[in-house]
Amino acid sequence: MPEPDPNVLVGFGTADDAGVYLLRDDLAIVQTVDFFTPIVDDPFDWGRISAANSLSDIYAMGATPLSALQVAGWPRDTLPLEMLGEVFAGGLTVLKEANCVLLGGHTIADDEPKYGLAVTGTVHPDDLVTNAGATPGDVLVLTKPLGSGVVATGIKRGLVDDVVADPVIDAMATLNAGAARAMRRVGVNAATDVTGFGLLGHLGEMIRASQVSTTLQWDSVPFFAGVHALIGDDVVPGGTLRNLEAVSRFTNFGSHDRARQIALADAQTSGGLLISVEAPLEKALLQALREEGVSGVTIGVIRSRAFADGPSGAVVVV
Amino acid sequence: MPEPDPNVLVGFGTADDAGVYLLRDDLAIVQTVDFFTPIVDDPFDWGRISAANSLSDIYAMGATPLSALQVAGWPRDTLPLEMLGEVFAGGLTVLKEANCVLLGGHTIADDEPKYGLAVTGTVHPDDLVTNAGATPGDVLVLTKPLGSGVVATGIKRGLVDDVVADPVIDAMATLNAGAARAMRRVGVNAATDVTGFGLLGHLGEMIRASQVSTTLQWDSVPFFAGVHALIGDDVVPGGTLRNLEAVSRFTNFGSHDRARQIALADAQTSGGLLISVEAPLEKALLQALREEGVSGVTIGVIRSRAFADGPSGAVVVV
Repeated sequence: MPEPDPNVLVGFGTADDAGVYLLRDDLAIVQTVDFFTPIVDDPFDWGRISAANSLSDIYAMGATPLSALQVAGWPRDTLPLEMLGEVFAGGLTVLKEANCVLLGGHTIADDEPKYGLAVTGTVHPDDLVTNAGATPGDVLVLTKPLGSGVVATGIKRGLVDDVVADPVIDAMATLNAGAARAMRRVGVNAATDVTGFGLLGHLGEMIRASQVSTTLQWDSVPFFAGVHALIGDDVVPGGTLRNLEAVSRFTNFGSHDRARQIALADAQTSGGLLISVEAPLEKALLQALREEGVSGVTIGVIRSRAFADGPSGAVVVV
Repeated sequence: MPEPDPNVLVGFGTADDAGVYLLRDDLAIVQTVDFFTPIVDDPFDWGRISAANSLSDIYAMGATPLSALQVAGWPRDTLPLEMLGEVFAGGLTVLKEANCVLLGGHTIADDEPKYGLAVTGTVHPDDLVTNAGATPGDVLVLTKPLGSGVVATGIKRGLVDDVVADPVIDAMATLNAGAARAMRRVGVNAATDVTGFGLLGHLGEMIRASQVSTTLQWDSVPFFAGVHALIGDDVVPGGTLRNLEAVSRFTNFGSHDRARQIALADAQTSGGLLISVEAPLEKALLQALREEGVSGVTIGVIRSRAFADGPSGAVVVV
């Protein structure tokens, strides 16, 4: 193995949201790539959501998006190229909102449509936020409701109407830019964004990286309208069930039933930020989030690892 | 439309090899993404070739690779994940050779294997080389033989033996790092790398961007052994035929027959650099390339646009 590069502040395989490379004493670049198959019917909305999702990893590190490259696959024999144009247009709308410039991209012929972005952001190294800084006594704040995986599955199966679907689509297409600004203003200990591994999966990465444990308040966790009913009707994505299996190894669900466990494990697309902040700063963070138009909710507390009820109880849901 | 960002030195849609963003007065980042389906049978070789191909766009701009993100798709139900590990290992070998750090990546379930890299490089803005600087009187130097598309198709069809295949696989897995160092040492007017659009396609982008025309010497253009025989046996990738149709709009092939036209239009993977250098510096460039272990060959000259025989004669093959 070669010597590790000292300029790699956050590398591959640490399960953080993005990689970070120190370019100058006062300048680091933050890099991430994500892309996926359509999760909603409307190509423009899909483009918006995928772009917001890709940009989210940059915000989760406390960085500011700078530039992006498109990554796409398209079945040009079965779907019109104009539709791909709508996907790109949706993504561009969100990139402009993020003040992030599109520098290039690559599209290949593919059986299934795919779209996403490789994004580069910049951050002063002192302002970098990782998932490794959560400290006993911190409170956990979440900035978007959960359940987008369940609702997206309902949309695909034609089981949900616009009243349920629209708020979820809007939330998935909403940048975590305001949440990132709020956490920069207040100063926080750790953050991650909630995406494919769900709340518990990404929380699990945070507490492992931070060597802490945590207690979640079920009653405080926000969900989109309609999520619990859909889970009751067995509308659950496969990824969510795989998440639940994985997180059950370190989560003590107490008396919470399987439906609630599924809800907490639901695979999210373009979810909110999960922020660990010192308790004395909780109110300031919630206030700053409100000022940014973001609805932050306190959902738990960080405990010392000694509190954990064995490896199975690193996350306790009460 | 928003105001164009003055820090975008090379943007999307200029048909250059990569996008360039000015971060500081003395520091620009160069960004590109490329990925594709397997072009050789051996997963390790495929990884090496795809990584060298992705890095090539950075070298073509005169920049130095800094960091990379993996982009991959894998059919985990039909191909073992260990094989994907070999692809990644091949790519990592080349990244290490390029002194480029892997910062992350994204892999999704896919019907067909796909692999590539999003790469970021750095360059002093004064050292940036684009495809737009070719000047009448320049000579054109090419740093790898042509025909990798034809040979790769022959490999896929089981029509070529190792004596033909190995040199092509080695060349595709060879970084354009030495060629880039040589052109930085000498100082050149323009460069691009020869990839999917073939020699004539990428040359066409260069002369359009530079507002010049060009004369190519058929006898000087280097090809891998076996290429002409394979073309004679009708072993030609579809992309090459599409290239030929596209370049025929601006290329005057004179009396050169269709087999030669196909050879010049062949879609390359991880091809060499095509460099436009002032005639008095030609010998110095060829010498510098030799010192870097790269076999550069002069294949043509740049002419003023007034020389062009109408739009169909922007490239004349003699």
